[in-house]
This record gives sequence, C-alpha cells and structure tokens, in this order.
Amino acid sequence: MTRPFISFLTDFGERATAPGVCRGVMWGICPEARILDLSHSVTAFSIREGAFLLWSTISYLPVGVHVAVVDPGVGTARRPVVMRAQRGDLLVGPDNGIWRPAAEALGSITEARELSNRDLWLPDTSANFHGRDIFSPVAAHLANGVRLNEVGPEVDVESLVNLELPTATAQHGRLDTAVVFIDRFGNCRLAGDLPDLSQAIGEVSAGRPLAVDFGGQCHQLVWSPTFGLVDPGDALLYRDGDTAGLALAVNQGSAAERFGLALGDLVRIESA
Amino acid sequence: MTRPFISFLTDFGERATAPGVCRGVMWGICPEARILDLSHSVTAFSIREGAFLLWSTISYLPVGVHVAVVDPGVGTARRPVVMRAQRGDLLVGPDNGIWRPAAEALGSITEARELSNRDLWLPDTSANFHGRDIFSPVAAHLANGVRLNEVGPEVDVESLVNLELPTATAQHGRLDTAVVFIDRFGNCRLAGDLPDLSQAIGEVSAGRPLAVDFGGQCHQLVWSPTFGLVDPGDALLYRDGDTAGLALAVNQGSAAERFGLALGDLVRIESA
Amino acid sequence: MTRPFISFLTDFGERATAPGVCRGVMWGICPEARILDLSHSVTAFSIREGAFLLWSTISYLPVGVHVAVVDPGVGTARRPVVMRAQRGDLLVGPDNGIWRPAAEALGSITEARELSNRDLWLPDTSANFHGRDIFSPVAAHLANGVRLNEVGPEVDVESLVNLELPTATAQHGRLDTAVVFIDRFGNCRLAGDLPDLSQAIGEVSAGRPLAVDFGGQCHQLVWSPTFGLVDPGDALLYRDGDTAGLALAVNQGSAAERFGLALGDLVRIESA
Repeated sequence: MTRPFISFLTDFGERATAPGVCRGVMWGICPEARILDLSHSVTAFSIREGAFLLWSTISYLPVGVHVAVVDPGVGTARRPVVMRAQRGDLLVGPDNGIWRPAAEALGSITEARELSNRDLWLPDTSANFHGRDIFSPVAAHLANGVRLNEVGPEVDVESLVNLELPTATAQHGRLDTAVVFIDRFGNCRLAGDLPDLSQAIGEVSAGRPLAVDFGGQCHQLVWSPTFGLVDPGDALLYRDGDTAGLALAVNQGSAAERFGLALGDLVRIESA
Repeated sequence: MTRPFISFLTDFGERATAPGVCRGVMWGICPEARILDLSHSVTAFSIREGAFLLWSTISYLPVGVHVAVVDPGVGTARRPVVMRAQRGDLLVGPDNGIWRPAAEALGSITEARELSNRDLWLPDTSANFHGRDIFSPVAAHLANGVRLNEVGPEVDVESLVNLELPTATAQHGRLDTAVVFIDRFGNCRLAGDLPDLSQAIGEVSAGRPLAVDFGGQCHQLVWSPTFGLVDPGDALLYRDGDTAGLALAVNQGSAAERFGLALGDLVRIESA
Repeated sequence: MTRPFISFLTDFGERATAPGVCRGVMWGICPEARILDLSHSVTAFSIREGAFLLWSTISYLPVGVHVAVVDPGVGTARRPVVMRAQRGDLLVGPDNGIWRPAAEALGSITEARELSNRDLWLPDTSANFHGRDIFSPVAAHLANGVRLNEVGPEVDVESLVNLELPTATAQHGRLDTAVVFIDRFGNCRLAGDLPDLSQAIGEVSAGRPLAVDFGGQCHQLVWSPTFGLVDPGDALLYRDGDTAGLALAVNQGSAAERFGLALGDLVRIESA
C-alpha cells in the first residue's frame, strides 16, 4: 500500500521554524506520511499569489492531501475547510479562495466540509496559528484515512469563497491579459499562453516586434524564445515553461520595477 | 513499528550544502529515518537563539532523536553529548547549554553521555565539521536502536553547561522581562506570556496604553491583539501565538531597529 | 529491502516551487523514494559551481540515484544522460560536464546512456523545464529498478562533455592554485588541501606570514586555523573542513570583494 502523501504551501517564510513545527505535528499523527514542502515563500498574506502557485503546480503532484495556509483572516470568523476534488485530492485550508483555481485544475470540487471536529485538532488551540493547531493535524488525520464526514458538517460548495485568476482574452487583433505572478527576479507571468497570443495577433516568431500597453503607458518590445536574444536591459515577451504561460521580462533586470507592475495589473498586447 | 524520527536544527544556513550532507550521513546509517529540518537559519554561533527556538518548538515534535548544532566551540575541548529527556527523547549536540531549556520543557534530563565511542563516528573526522562527522552519525545510530550506554561514558547531569532563558517577573505593578528572540522582521519576542503581564498590571485589553522602558529609554505604546489596530510605523505589544508569548513590534517596521534592541536586553512594562 | 535514495541539486532557487514540483513528479513514480535536497541555491547556470559542490559532497551520500540540473543548454541539442559510477551510483543530468568531477570521486564512469526513451518521460514535455519533464521522471524510474539499458542507447564515455576542476601544483617553493568556489560570505575555496601547501612551502603553522598573488596583485596575509586569530578586516588563509581544502577569507568581510576574485581565478601562494 502506498504511503500517504501530503503537500504543504504557506507564507511562513523559508527561515521560520513554523513549517518544521507543522511537519512535526503531521508526523506525530501520521508517521508514514510523505510530506512535500511546495513553498513557504509565498508573499505574506497574498492569497492570489498562493492560488496561482497551487494552480500551476498541483497537477504534477501525486493524488493526496494538500494543505495551503495563506491566511490573513486567521482569528476571524472565516471557516477552516477541506474540499474533495474530482481527481481524488483533499484540499485543506482557510475558506478564502486560495484553493479554487487549483480545484478547477483537478476537475472541480465534489464535496466540502468545515473542520469543526475539535477531536482532530491539537488539544490546545491558539488564536493565530491555525496552520499548526488545526490545518496540520486535520490533514494528517485525513492522510491516516479518517473519513471526510468526520471532520465536520458539509458546506455548500456554492457558499465557498471564490477566487478567479485573471484570464486572457483575444479580440480585435489584441490580447487583453493581466499580471498573475511576479517572481523574485521581477519577471511577470501574464494570464494566458502562446496559443492565446497567436489567436489574437497571428503567428508569433522570434524577434517579432510587439506593442505592450500597461494602463496607458505603451512600450515596444519583441517576442523572444530566450533572454539571450535581446540586449541586457531590453524587455522581452516569452513563454515561461515552468508555469506554462506568457511572461514579460527585462534581460538582466526587473520587468516589475521597470514598468511599475503589480499583481493583477492589466496588460494589453498588440502587433507593433 | 513506527519509523524512527530525527529532528535537525543548525546555523549552517539554508543555502549551504552542509544540512544535506548531514542528512545523507544519517540516511546512510539509518535508511528508515524520518528526518525533519526544523531550521538551518539560526544566527551563526547564537546558542541562545537556538536554545529559544528548540524550547518553543520541541513539544510539538514527535518523540525521537533531536540534533542541534550551533557550535562556536567546535575544535576545542567542549564535549559532544547526548541527553535523555523524561518524555523519552534523545537530545544530541555540543555541551554548550543549547538543549537545556528544551530539556526542561520535556521534563528534565534523566541521563547524559559523552559521544566518545569512535565506532559510531564517521571513520575520518575533521576538526571543524562535527555536525557531519560526529553528531549526525551518532544520532542515526541511536535512531537505529543503539543503546545509550554504547555511545560513551555517563556524564554527571550537574556538570553539563547550563543555560537559562530570561524569565518575566511581575512585581510592584510592572513586568520585568527581556528580549529572547528577534525574528527576520525585527519583531522582538519577550520572556513571559499574557498571564504574567495581567498579573503585573491587571487585565490587558485591546488599545490599553503601556509604558515600556528599554534600559532608560521610555516609550508609550498600546496592547493590540493584531498589527492592523495601530498605524503603520507605530509600536505595539502583542501575543505571539507561534511561540506562545509576549512580543514587541512596529507595524510595517522593525522594533529591533527602532528601539536598538538585541538578544538579552532588559525590558520593563508598566501601565501608562 | 532498503528504500531507494535520490539526491537532487539544482540552480532553481530555494524559494521557487520548481524543486517541489520535481519531487512531486519523482514521488508520483517512485512513492518509496527517500529524496534528499542537496541544494537548490547553485548560482544560476554555473556548471562549475555545481560540479564543485557535487564533487565535495557526493561521497557522504548513500549509494543511489543522483540528479543535478544546472542546464544553460536546456532547449538546445545537448544530451540528457545518465552515468553509472563505479561505486554503484547513477548520475542523472545534462551532458555538460557537471557530473565529471563527482564521478571521478566515485571511482570513474563505467557506463553512460542517453535518456531518449520517451516512455520514461512525462507525457507532455516542455522546451525548457527538463528537470521536471525528463530528469525527474527518469531518475524515479531508475530508483524503481528500471534497468539502465531501458533509458536509451549507450553513449561512448569518451564522448561525454568533460569538465575538470582546477588543481593545485606545488613547485619552486610556491603553490599555484585557483578559486573553485565562493560561498555566500565571499570566502574563496581554493584548489588543493593543506598537504599540497606544506609540500610547496614546508610546515604551515598558525600565524605564518604568506604572500598571495592574484593575477599580479600581491597581498600579505597569515595562515590561521580560526578566523578569530586575525583582526576584523584582515585576510587569512585557512583550511575549510566542510569541503576539505584551502580557503581564503577576510575576517568579518568578503575576500571575493576585497580581492576582486571570481570562480576560476588563479592564485599563487608563497612564503612571505
């Protein structure tokens, strides 16, 4: 029998002891679990960044229990929940929308429960460390085979907080998209992939000049399969293979800084 | 039978290969071990910081073998030791006090041994990488079931280097405490918890003004259950749930920088 | 039977989700694998730095499958390969020389194969994330016991890209060496170890003055077993125990910055 699998993503920071403590709690309850730290470097409180990272990675992970803790509402009335996705995964976290895009990638949510059964929590529960006291122990119990109906009452899937990542729209010879992720180098991942861009402006080949508009500012840049095809300091649009989509970069620089871009900012791409 | 558990804390740095090499040594000796990296980001050589982090986290980890390597005395005559704590854990590291507060949290030390049996070390031992050459292999042998009396001669528990974390004292309407940990945001964890403060100055409610004295400098601030209740740049005293205790912060700033605080600095809290 | 072992080194960065995604792919194929993250902090595209780190650590790791992905040539015609080393390890990565020094440390390469059997890749393969799509799944299949001849055709070992780390040469009363690694503090690891230096200039004792020449610039410094023996800001030559070799440092400073050193720079050491 395959050992249970738990993945774990938070905004606790790589240098904190909090991720290790949570893994300790999980292993105390489910000693056979394989625990995968997906990332603990999500920007603090950025539900949208966490949602994007989960959406872009979840289908590469084994079927199992997945825990996400990016939780600006900890200590308030927001519900701790678990969702079952069609692929068979159990998605554990606060009801703040962080799991919605990933759940769609796994074939939608078939059942949701509130984590209200305190027998599955740690005995002493703090006001603000639900990652350790609620999410980790319940996830480990689920990995142990505790059934979903034991964690708490059913929750209407329609009542769960929704969150939709921006999408790309091709029309009138242009692609309307938006920034969905900014990496630590300042590269900006945009909604949509190469087929969306081709649909909007026709075949896209290396060196093709493009006009990119960020809320009124218009910039000229080129499509380039690799950074090395443009001069240092020049901007390029390319396809990011890690997350399978369009992205904007400055060779040896930060596109986010150069163009003043933040998560959610609208971007329009046209032929130049 | 449950697979053996080893936790691991050092000041090697998250980006070094040293933690991975040590885990490789452990897995070479005890292939079934579950190894938990608690942190490798302890400030270099800060025994007191390591001692605080172990004390504040150890009770959430499974019973097992725990290794701590923060070792300014490596290459000198300080003894490598293992201590058995009442809960059943084996605490492995240099005899420099780093394990003493955590051992108390696990119900005191019932036996201690010096790691002098070279059959349990790596065959070639370096002068300055005892984490790899002594602590990791001995810990893995203990996880494999090697008995404590095989690692070396008994050590008088009274002879072990002691280290006591600062405590909070409530008297004359004030709380005398001290900085026990500074996180990467500059938030300062203080000795003691909310009941200590209440004992000193009565019930503490949101927005209550407090006078906080750092070695002569006196500052006004408020008690606040959350950062958001004070303006950006303002200071607050709050309860840190991760480590269960009082803490001092500046909203969107660094309390350590603002007030010039370092580990061990005394702090006095009174009604304002 | 011992659970299979996979080690993993890349330049993806500790904060990226890419290492977690790759581990997810490995565990999806080989659920029993023990996966050891050796480092994901190799300087981007620095094959030579990765080669040094693998060479200096590999012999401490259990025999198993080892994956290294530092791959400036991803998307070009460079071959993905696996090499069997005499110790029994399987070394997986791009054919760019990164594994050559470590393979020598394990007793040379006895067989090499190109990873061309697409049945062992992920079904959909991207142009630039071979770590996830090719190297991780093939490594996991090998950990599962898939035989080497199933991954693809044999490759002439002589045809593999070679890479030799600089060596130290003792002659005429001096040691000619070179920078092989720069750590995050700016300490510079040099080729060779203490016996090489002793052979060149005789017995080396604490405080012995040395003349060190970096491409024309000559500096006076001392041999010191510990940093504390020289004043802050002063340079020293010492023996780095982690990687077993000579190293150059500035106490509380960066030797790389002070002397303008980069990977591969030549260094000559003489008596002063």
